[in-house]
Amino acid sequence: MSPAPRIEIIPITGIPEVVEGDDLAAHIAEALATASQDARLVAGDIVVVTQKVVSKAEGRLVGAGDRMEAALAEAKRVVRKTASTLITETHHGHVCANSGVDDSNVAPGYVSLLPLDPDLSARRIRARLGRLTGVEPAVVISDTFGRAWRLGQTDIAIGVAGMDPFLDYRGELDANGKVLVATQIAVADEIAGAAEMVMGKSSGVCAAVVRGAPVKPGRGTAAQIIRPVAEDLFR
Amino acid sequence: MSPAPRIEIIPITGIPEVVEGDDLAAHIAEALATASQDARLVAGDIVVVTQKVVSKAEGRLVGAGDRMEAALAEAKRVVRKTASTLITETHHGHVCANSGVDDSNVAPGYVSLLPLDPDLSARRIRARLGRLTGVEPAVVISDTFGRAWRLGQTDIAIGVAGMDPFLDYRGELDANGKVLVATQIAVADEIAGAAEMVMGKSSGVCAAVVRGAPVKPGRGTAAQIIRPVAEDLFR
Repeated sequence: MSPAPRIEIIPITGIPEVVEGDDLAAHIAEALATASQDARLVAGDIVVVTQKVVSKAEGRLVGAGDRMEAALAEAKRVVRKTASTLITETHHGHVCANSGVDDSNVAPGYVSLLPLDPDLSARRIRARLGRLTGVEPAVVISDTFGRAWRLGQTDIAIGVAGMDPFLDYRGELDANGKVLVATQIAVADEIAGAAEMVMGKSSGVCAAVVRGAPVKPGRGTAAQIIRPVAEDLFR
Repeated sequence: MSPAPRIEIIPITGIPEVVEGDDLAAHIAEALATASQDARLVAGDIVVVTQKVVSKAEGRLVGAGDRMEAALAEAKRVVRKTASTLITETHHGHVCANSGVDDSNVAPGYVSLLPLDPDLSARRIRARLGRLTGVEPAVVISDTFGRAWRLGQTDIAIGVAGMDPFLDYRGELDANGKVLVATQIAVADEIAGAAEMVMGKSSGVCAAVVRGAPVKPGRGTAAQIIRPVAEDLFR
Protein backbone atom coordinates (compact mmCIF):
# COMPACT_ATOMS: atom_id res chain seq x y z
CA MET A 1 0.00 0.00 0.00
CA SER A 2 1.42 3.38 -0.93
CA PRO A 3 1.63 6.09 1.72
CA ALA A 4 -1.64 7.97 2.15
CA PRO A 5 -1.58 11.70 1.40
CA ARG A 6 -0.47 13.59 4.47
CA ILE A 7 -0.04 17.13 5.67
CA GLU A 8 3.31 18.56 6.69
CA ILE A 9 3.86 21.60 8.87
CA ILE A 10 7.33 22.97 8.36
CA PRO A 11 8.80 25.80 10.44
CA ILE A 12 10.62 28.50 8.48
CA THR A 13 13.74 29.13 10.51
CA GLY A 14 16.38 31.81 10.14
CA ILE A 15 14.19 34.89 9.69
CA PRO A 16 16.01 37.79 11.41
CA GLU A 17 14.36 40.13 13.93
CA VAL A 18 11.83 42.15 11.92
CA VAL A 19 11.69 45.93 12.15
CA GLU A 20 9.43 48.61 10.67
CA GLY A 21 9.75 48.90 6.94
CA ASP A 22 11.23 45.44 6.48
CA ASP A 23 10.30 43.47 3.39
CA LEU A 24 8.87 40.53 5.32
CA ALA A 25 8.23 38.44 2.20
CA ALA A 26 11.88 38.88 1.22
CA HIS A 27 12.96 37.65 4.67
CA ILE A 28 10.72 34.60 4.23
CA ALA A 29 11.95 33.92 0.70
CA GLU A 30 15.57 34.21 1.80
CA ALA A 31 15.02 31.87 4.76
CA LEU A 32 13.33 29.36 2.45
CA ALA A 33 16.20 29.56 -0.04
CA THR A 34 18.79 28.75 2.62
CA ALA A 35 16.69 26.05 4.30
CA SER A 36 16.68 22.41 3.29
CA GLN A 37 15.49 21.80 -0.26
CA ASP A 38 12.08 20.44 0.65
CA ALA A 39 11.23 23.57 2.61
CA ARG A 40 11.12 25.46 -0.70
CA LEU A 41 7.64 26.39 -1.81
CA VAL A 42 5.67 24.12 -4.09
CA ALA A 43 2.26 24.65 -5.65
CA GLY A 44 -0.52 24.32 -3.09
CA ASP A 45 1.61 25.40 -0.13
CA ILE A 46 0.23 27.76 2.46
CA VAL A 47 2.60 30.16 4.19
CA VAL A 48 1.48 31.07 7.70
CA VAL A 49 2.94 34.23 9.23
CA THR A 50 2.33 35.45 12.77
CA GLN A 51 0.52 38.72 13.34
CA LYS A 52 3.44 39.87 15.46
CA VAL A 53 5.99 40.08 12.66
CA VAL A 54 3.48 41.54 10.21
CA SER A 55 2.68 44.25 12.76
CA LYS A 56 6.40 44.88 13.32
CA ALA A 57 7.10 45.20 9.60
CA GLU A 58 4.14 47.55 9.25
CA GLY A 59 5.22 49.71 12.20
CA ARG A 60 2.16 48.83 14.28
CA LEU A 61 3.87 49.33 17.66
CA VAL A 62 3.01 51.93 20.28
CA GLY A 63 4.34 52.75 23.73
CA ALA A 64 3.26 50.27 26.37
CA GLY A 65 2.08 53.07 28.67
CA ASP A 66 -0.93 53.56 26.41
CA ARG A 67 -1.88 49.90 26.52
CA MET A 68 -5.48 50.12 27.73
CA GLU A 69 -6.01 53.29 25.74
CA ALA A 70 -4.66 51.49 22.67
CA ALA A 71 -7.00 48.53 23.26
CA LEU A 72 -9.99 50.88 23.40
CA ALA A 73 -8.80 52.87 20.38
CA GLU A 74 -8.53 49.62 18.39
CA ALA A 75 -12.06 48.57 19.42
CA LYS A 76 -15.34 49.01 17.63
CA ARG A 77 -17.16 47.90 20.78
CA VAL A 78 -16.48 46.41 24.18
CA VAL A 79 -18.11 42.97 24.35
CA ARG A 80 -17.29 42.17 28.00
CA LYS A 81 -15.35 44.05 30.67
CA THR A 82 -14.23 42.81 34.07
CA ALA A 83 -11.57 44.06 36.46
CA SER A 84 -8.94 41.91 34.71
CA THR A 85 -10.31 41.29 31.23
CA LEU A 86 -11.38 43.42 28.33
CA ILE A 87 -13.01 41.49 25.48
CA THR A 88 -13.51 43.73 22.50
CA GLU A 89 -14.59 43.64 18.91
CA THR A 90 -11.79 45.16 16.84
CA HIS A 91 -12.37 47.52 13.94
CA HIS A 92 -11.94 44.46 11.69
CA GLY A 93 -14.69 42.65 13.61
CA HIS A 94 -12.53 40.07 15.40
CA VAL A 95 -13.57 39.44 19.00
CA CYS A 96 -10.58 38.99 21.31
CA ALA A 97 -8.88 40.14 24.49
CA ASN A 98 -7.67 43.76 24.52
CA SER A 99 -8.26 44.22 20.77
CA GLY A 100 -5.18 42.09 20.13
CA VAL A 101 -2.89 44.65 21.81
CA ASP A 102 -0.05 42.56 23.19
CA ASP A 103 3.42 43.02 24.65
CA SER A 104 4.95 39.57 24.10
CA ASN A 105 7.87 39.31 21.70
CA VAL A 106 8.14 43.09 21.20
CA ALA A 107 10.86 45.38 22.53
CA PRO A 108 10.47 46.42 26.19
CA GLY A 109 8.27 49.50 26.51
CA TYR A 110 6.19 48.71 23.44
CA VAL A 111 2.99 46.85 22.58
CA SER A 112 1.92 45.65 19.17
CA LEU A 113 -1.40 46.45 17.50
CA LEU A 114 -3.05 44.24 14.88
CA PRO A 115 -2.29 45.17 11.25
CA LEU A 116 -4.71 47.80 9.94
CA ASP A 117 -5.97 45.43 7.24
CA PRO A 118 -4.59 41.90 7.76
CA ASP A 119 -6.28 40.56 4.62
CA LEU A 120 -4.50 43.23 2.58
CA SER A 121 -1.24 42.37 4.37
CA ALA A 122 -1.75 38.71 3.42
CA ARG A 123 -2.42 39.59 -0.23
CA ARG A 124 0.74 41.72 -0.38
CA ILE A 125 2.91 38.99 1.18
CA ARG A 126 1.42 36.46 -1.23
CA ALA A 127 2.07 38.61 -4.31
CA ARG A 128 5.61 39.44 -3.22
CA LEU A 129 6.42 35.80 -2.39
CA GLY A 130 5.14 34.88 -5.84
CA ARG A 131 7.53 37.34 -7.49
CA LEU A 132 10.49 36.31 -5.33
CA THR A 133 10.08 32.52 -5.38
CA GLY A 134 8.15 31.80 -8.57
CA VAL A 135 5.44 30.07 -6.51
CA GLU A 136 2.49 32.09 -5.26
CA PRO A 137 1.40 30.38 -2.02
CA ALA A 138 -1.79 30.95 -0.13
CA VAL A 139 -1.03 33.09 2.92
CA VAL A 140 -2.58 33.02 6.38
CA ILE A 141 -1.75 35.62 9.04
CA SER A 142 -2.27 33.99 12.42
CA ASP A 143 -2.92 35.34 15.89
CA THR A 144 -3.39 33.72 19.28
CA PHE A 145 -6.95 34.23 20.55
CA GLY A 146 -8.91 33.01 23.54
CA ARG A 147 -12.30 31.40 23.13
CA ALA A 148 -15.66 31.46 24.86
CA TRP A 149 -16.33 28.35 27.01
CA ARG A 150 -12.86 26.86 26.66
CA LEU A 151 -9.62 27.57 28.49
CA GLY A 152 -6.39 28.23 26.69
CA GLN A 153 -5.77 29.95 23.40
CA THR A 154 -5.41 28.68 19.85
CA ASP A 155 -4.10 30.40 16.76
CA ILE A 156 -6.73 31.53 14.28
CA ALA A 157 -6.60 33.35 10.93
CA ILE A 158 -6.88 37.15 10.98
CA GLY A 159 -5.62 37.50 7.39
CA VAL A 160 -6.09 35.23 4.38
CA ALA A 161 -5.02 35.42 0.73
CA GLY A 162 -5.17 33.05 -2.21
CA MET A 163 -7.60 30.56 -0.71
CA ASP A 164 -11.15 30.06 0.45
CA PRO A 165 -11.10 30.27 4.28
CA PHE A 166 -13.78 27.59 4.40
CA LEU A 167 -14.13 24.01 3.23
CA ASP A 168 -17.79 23.76 2.46
CA TYR A 169 -19.34 20.31 2.73
CA ARG A 170 -22.91 21.57 2.59
CA GLY A 171 -24.74 19.64 -0.09
CA GLU A 172 -22.07 16.93 -0.32
CA LEU A 173 -22.83 13.35 0.63
CA ASP A 174 -21.50 11.66 3.74
CA ALA A 175 -20.15 8.09 3.78
CA ASN A 176 -23.74 6.79 3.95
CA GLY A 177 -24.96 8.89 1.03
CA LYS A 178 -26.80 11.37 3.26
CA VAL A 179 -26.61 15.06 2.33
CA LEU A 180 -24.47 17.04 4.78
CA VAL A 181 -26.46 20.10 5.77
CA ALA A 182 -24.49 22.05 8.34
CA THR A 183 -20.80 21.46 7.86
CA GLN A 184 -18.62 24.32 6.76
CA ILE A 185 -15.10 23.91 8.12
CA ALA A 186 -13.13 27.05 8.94
CA VAL A 187 -10.00 25.47 7.48
CA ALA A 188 -8.00 28.73 7.62
CA ASP A 189 -8.37 28.67 11.40
CA GLU A 190 -7.32 25.00 11.56
CA ILE A 191 -4.26 25.85 9.43
CA ALA A 192 -3.32 28.72 11.75
CA GLY A 193 -3.68 26.44 14.79
CA ALA A 194 -1.63 23.69 13.16
CA ALA A 195 1.17 26.14 12.30
CA GLU A 196 1.19 27.49 15.86
CA MET A 197 2.54 24.13 16.97
CA VAL A 198 5.83 24.66 15.10
CA MET A 199 6.10 28.36 15.90
CA GLY A 200 5.55 28.38 19.64
CA LYS A 201 5.85 31.50 21.71
CA SER A 202 9.47 31.53 22.79
CA SER A 203 11.21 29.93 19.81
CA GLY A 204 11.47 33.00 17.59
CA VAL A 205 9.94 31.11 14.65
CA CYS A 206 7.44 33.46 13.05
CA ALA A 207 6.42 31.63 9.86
CA ALA A 208 5.68 28.13 8.64
CA VAL A 209 4.74 26.24 5.51
CA VAL A 210 1.64 24.05 5.64
CA ARG A 211 1.85 21.51 2.82
CA GLY A 212 -0.89 19.20 1.64
CA ALA A 213 -3.86 20.87 3.36
CA PRO A 214 -7.22 20.53 1.58
CA VAL A 215 -7.78 24.16 0.62
CA LYS A 216 -9.64 25.58 -2.35
CA PRO A 217 -7.71 28.32 -4.17
CA GLY A 218 -9.65 31.56 -4.30
CA ARG A 219 -9.90 35.18 -3.34
CA GLY A 220 -11.10 34.47 0.19
CA THR A 221 -10.46 36.64 3.21
CA ALA A 222 -10.36 36.26 6.97
CA ALA A 223 -13.09 38.91 7.12
CA GLN A 224 -15.43 36.25 5.72
CA ILE A 225 -14.89 34.17 8.86
CA ILE A 226 -16.28 36.90 11.12
CA ARG A 227 -19.84 36.07 12.11
CA PRO A 228 -22.11 39.00 11.29
CA VAL A 229 -23.24 40.71 14.50
CA ALA A 230 -26.91 40.18 13.60
CA GLU A 231 -26.36 36.39 13.49
CA ASP A 232 -24.17 36.24 16.57
CA LEU A 233 -25.77 34.96 19.78
CA PHE A 234 -22.75 35.91 21.91
CA ARG A 235 -22.06 39.58 21.19
CA MET B 1 21.41 23.18 6.93
CA SER B 2 19.53 20.12 8.15
CA PRO B 3 15.76 20.00 7.83
CA ALA B 4 13.98 21.75 10.72
CA PRO B 5 11.75 19.58 12.91
CA ARG B 6 8.32 19.38 11.41
CA ILE B 7 4.90 17.99 12.18
CA GLU B 8 3.22 15.36 10.05
CA ILE B 9 -0.48 14.60 9.96
CA ILE B 10 -1.07 11.14 8.57
CA PRO B 11 -4.55 9.75 7.80
CA ILE B 12 -5.16 6.19 8.98
CA THR B 13 -6.95 4.59 6.06
CA GLY B 14 -8.62 1.22 5.77
CA ILE B 15 -10.62 1.17 9.01
CA PRO B 16 -13.88 -0.67 8.26
CA GLU B 17 -17.34 0.68 9.14
CA VAL B 18 -17.50 0.61 12.94
CA VAL B 19 -20.46 -0.94 14.77
CA GLU B 20 -21.47 -1.27 18.41
CA GLY B 21 -19.13 -3.48 20.40
CA ASP B 22 -16.25 -3.15 17.95
CA ASP B 23 -12.73 -3.05 19.32
CA LEU B 24 -11.90 0.32 17.78
CA ALA B 25 -8.26 0.25 18.91
CA ALA B 26 -7.85 -3.13 17.20
CA HIS B 27 -9.26 -1.67 13.97
CA ILE B 28 -6.77 1.20 14.23
CA ALA B 29 -3.85 -1.11 15.03
CA GLU B 30 -4.74 -3.38 12.10
CA ALA B 31 -5.04 -0.44 9.71
CA LEU B 32 -1.66 0.86 10.88
CA ALA B 33 -0.07 -2.57 10.41
CA THR B 34 -1.23 -2.79 6.81
CA ALA B 35 -0.43 0.83 5.98
CA SER B 36 2.93 2.03 4.74
CA GLN B 37 5.75 1.44 7.20
CA ASP B 38 6.08 5.05 8.35
CA ALA B 39 2.44 5.17 9.37
CA ARG B 40 3.26 2.75 12.21
CA LEU B 41 3.29 4.34 15.61
CA VAL B 42 6.47 5.76 17.07
CA ALA B 43 7.08 7.25 20.51
CA GLY B 44 5.54 10.71 20.82
CA ASP B 45 2.79 10.07 18.29
CA ILE B 46 -0.73 11.26 18.95
CA VAL B 47 -3.63 9.23 17.57
CA VAL B 48 -6.69 11.34 16.84
CA VAL B 49 -10.04 9.53 16.56
CA THR B 50 -13.33 11.15 15.62
CA GLN B 51 -16.16 11.23 18.13
CA LYS B 52 -18.39 9.58 15.56
CA VAL B 53 -16.61 6.22 15.48
CA VAL B 54 -16.06 6.20 19.23
CA SER B 55 -19.80 6.76 19.69
CA LYS B 56 -20.58 3.99 17.18
CA ALA B 57 -18.28 1.51 18.91
CA GLU B 58 -19.83 2.42 22.26
CA GLY B 59 -23.38 2.08 20.95
CA ARG B 60 -24.20 5.75 21.44
CA LEU B 61 -26.81 5.92 18.67
CA VAL B 62 -30.51 6.61 19.09
CA GLY B 63 -33.45 6.90 16.70
CA ALA B 64 -33.43 10.16 14.76
CA GLY B 65 -37.06 10.85 15.66
CA ASP B 66 -35.95 11.72 19.18
CA ARG B 67 -33.34 14.19 17.98
CA MET B 68 -34.41 17.33 19.84
CA GLU B 69 -35.40 15.27 22.85
CA ALA B 70 -31.97 13.63 22.74
CA ALA B 71 -30.24 17.01 22.56
CA LEU B 72 -32.11 18.19 25.64
CA ALA B 73 -31.53 14.91 27.48
CA GLU B 74 -27.78 15.26 26.78
CA ALA B 75 -27.77 18.86 28.08
CA LYS B 76 -26.92 20.19 31.52
CA ARG B 77 -28.29 23.58 30.48
CA VAL B 78 -29.48 25.45 27.41
CA VAL B 79 -27.09 28.33 26.72
CA ARG B 80 -28.95 29.89 23.77
CA LYS B 81 -32.10 28.89 21.91
CA THR B 82 -33.49 30.32 18.69
CA ALA B 83 -35.97 28.93 16.18
CA SER B 84 -33.16 27.16 14.31
CA THR B 85 -30.38 26.76 16.86
CA LEU B 86 -29.99 25.12 20.23
CA ILE B 87 -26.68 25.84 21.95
CA THR B 88 -26.31 23.67 25.02
CA GLU B 89 -23.83 22.77 27.68
CA THR B 90 -23.51 18.99 27.67
CA HIS B 91 -23.28 16.89 30.82
CA HIS B 92 -19.51 16.90 30.28
CA GLY B 93 -19.53 20.72 30.19
CA HIS B 94 -18.78 21.20 26.48
CA VAL B 95 -20.78 24.03 24.89
CA CYS B 96 -21.95 23.16 21.38
CA ALA B 97 -24.93 22.93 19.04
CA ASN B 98 -27.59 20.35 19.99
CA SER B 99 -25.39 18.74 22.67
CA GLY B 100 -23.35 17.17 19.88
CA VAL B 101 -26.31 15.10 18.66
CA ASP B 102 -25.67 14.66 14.98
CA ASP B 103 -26.94 12.60 12.04
CA SER B 104 -24.00 12.81 9.62
CA ASN B 105 -22.12 9.60 8.85
CA VAL B 106 -24.54 7.41 10.79
CA ALA B 107 -27.08 4.99 9.33
CA PRO B 108 -30.34 6.57 8.09
CA GLY B 109 -32.87 6.90 10.91
CA TYR B 110 -30.24 7.30 13.62
CA VAL B 111 -28.34 10.10 15.33
CA SER B 112 -25.17 9.80 17.37
CA LEU B 113 -24.69 11.06 20.91
CA LEU B 114 -21.34 12.01 22.40
CA PRO B 115 -19.54 9.26 24.34
CA LEU B 116 -20.64 9.19 27.98
CA ASP B 117 -17.08 9.89 29.16
CA PRO B 118 -14.82 10.77 26.22
CA ASP B 119 -11.74 11.12 28.44
CA LEU B 120 -12.28 7.56 29.65
CA SER B 121 -12.81 6.43 26.04
CA ALA B 122 -9.48 8.06 25.13
CA ARG B 123 -7.67 6.36 28.02
CA ARG B 124 -9.08 2.97 27.01
CA ILE B 125 -8.08 3.40 23.35
CA ARG B 126 -4.61 4.50 24.44
CA ALA B 127 -4.09 1.51 26.74
CA ARG B 128 -5.38 -0.95 24.16
CA LEU B 129 -3.25 0.56 21.37
CA GLY B 130 -0.27 0.25 23.69
CA ARG B 131 -0.92 -3.45 24.19
CA LEU B 132 -1.56 -4.09 20.50
CA THR B 133 1.24 -2.06 18.95
CA GLY B 134 3.89 -1.84 21.67
CA VAL B 135 3.74 1.96 21.50
CA GLU B 136 1.36 3.80 23.81
CA PRO B 137 0.41 6.96 21.91
CA ALA B 138 -1.35 9.99 23.31
CA VAL B 139 -4.99 9.91 22.17
CA VAL B 140 -7.32 12.78 21.26
CA ILE B 141 -11.01 12.24 20.52
CA SER B 142 -12.12 15.04 18.21
CA ASP B 143 -15.46 16.58 17.39
CA THR B 144 -16.57 19.35 15.06
CA PHE B 145 -17.87 22.36 17.02
CA GLY B 146 -19.03 25.83 16.08
CA ARG B 147 -17.64 28.88 17.83
CA ALA B 148 -18.91 32.18 19.18
CA TRP B 149 -18.09 35.16 16.94
CA ARG B 150 -16.69 33.13 14.04
CA LEU B 151 -18.40 31.31 11.19
CA GLY B 152 -17.60 27.74 10.32
CA GLN B 153 -16.62 24.88 12.56
CA THR B 154 -13.29 23.47 13.64
CA ASP B 155 -12.44 20.19 15.31
CA ILE B 156 -11.64 20.38 19.00
CA ALA B 157 -10.71 17.80 21.64
CA ILE B 158 -13.54 16.25 23.66
CA GLY B 159 -11.35 13.40 24.96
CA VAL B 160 -7.64 13.36 25.82
CA ALA B 161 -5.30 10.69 27.21
CA GLY B 162 -1.58 10.49 27.76
CA MET B 163 -0.79 14.17 27.36
CA ASP B 164 -1.28 17.58 28.89
CA PRO B 165 -4.04 19.31 26.85
CA PHE B 166 -2.19 22.60 27.27
CA LEU B 167 1.22 23.96 26.42
CA ASP B 168 1.86 26.40 29.20
CA TYR B 169 4.18 29.28 28.41
CA ARG B 170 3.26 31.24 31.54
CA GLY B 171 6.47 32.18 33.30
CA GLU B 172 8.67 31.38 30.29
CA LEU B 173 10.64 34.10 28.55
CA ASP B 174 9.81 35.43 25.10
CA ALA B 175 12.46 36.11 22.43
CA ASN B 176 13.21 39.44 24.15
CA GLY B 177 13.62 37.90 27.59
CA LYS B 178 10.26 39.21 28.81
CA VAL B 179 8.16 36.90 31.00
CA LEU B 180 5.09 35.60 29.17
CA VAL B 181 2.12 36.10 31.46
CA ALA B 182 -1.01 35.00 29.66
CA THR B 183 -0.16 32.33 27.15
CA GLN B 184 -1.46 28.84 27.67
CA ILE B 185 -2.03 27.12 24.34
CA ALA B 186 -4.87 24.58 24.09
CA VAL B 187 -2.65 22.32 21.99
CA ALA B 188 -5.10 19.38 22.16
CA ASP B 189 -7.62 21.53 20.29
CA GLU B 190 -5.00 22.55 17.70
CA ILE B 191 -4.12 18.86 17.22
CA ALA B 192 -7.80 17.97 16.71
CA GLY B 193 -8.18 20.78 14.17
CA ALA B 194 -5.03 19.76 12.34
CA ALA B 195 -6.19 16.13 12.12
CA GLU B 196 -9.59 17.22 10.81
CA MET B 197 -7.83 18.34 7.63
CA VAL B 198 -6.91 14.76 6.71
CA MET B 199 -10.16 13.21 7.89
CA GLY B 200 -12.70 15.43 6.17
CA LYS B 201 -16.40 14.77 6.38
CA SER B 202 -17.10 12.62 3.36
CA SER B 203 -13.87 10.63 3.04
CA GLY B 204 -14.62 7.93 5.60
CA VAL B 205 -11.27 8.49 7.33
CA CYS B 206 -11.97 8.44 11.07
CA ALA B 207 -8.49 8.49 12.59
CA ALA B 208 -5.10 10.09 12.05
CA VAL B 209 -1.60 10.14 13.49
CA VAL B 210 -0.14 13.51 14.44
CA ARG B 211 3.64 13.15 14.61
CA GLY B 212 6.09 15.69 15.99
CA ALA B 213 3.64 17.93 17.86
CA PRO B 214 5.04 19.70 20.94
CA VAL B 215 3.01 17.95 23.63
CA LYS B 216 3.95 17.20 27.20
CA PRO B 217 3.20 13.60 28.25
CA GLY B 218 0.87 13.45 31.22
CA ARG B 219 -2.46 12.41 32.64
CA GLY B 220 -4.35 15.35 31.17
CA THR B 221 -7.99 15.34 30.12
CA ALA B 222 -10.25 17.28 27.80
CA ALA B 223 -12.35 18.12 30.85
CA GLN B 224 -9.49 20.41 31.91
CA ILE B 225 -10.09 22.52 28.80
CA ILE B 226 -13.65 23.37 29.82
CA ARG B 227 -13.76 26.85 31.30
CA PRO B 228 -15.42 26.77 34.70
CA VAL B 229 -18.86 28.37 34.52
CA ALA B 230 -17.93 30.88 37.23
CA GLU B 231 -15.04 32.19 35.07
CA ASP B 232 -17.00 32.15 31.82
CA LEU B 233 -18.24 35.49 30.51
CA PHE B 234 -20.34 33.87 27.77
CA ARG B 235 -22.54 31.30 29.49
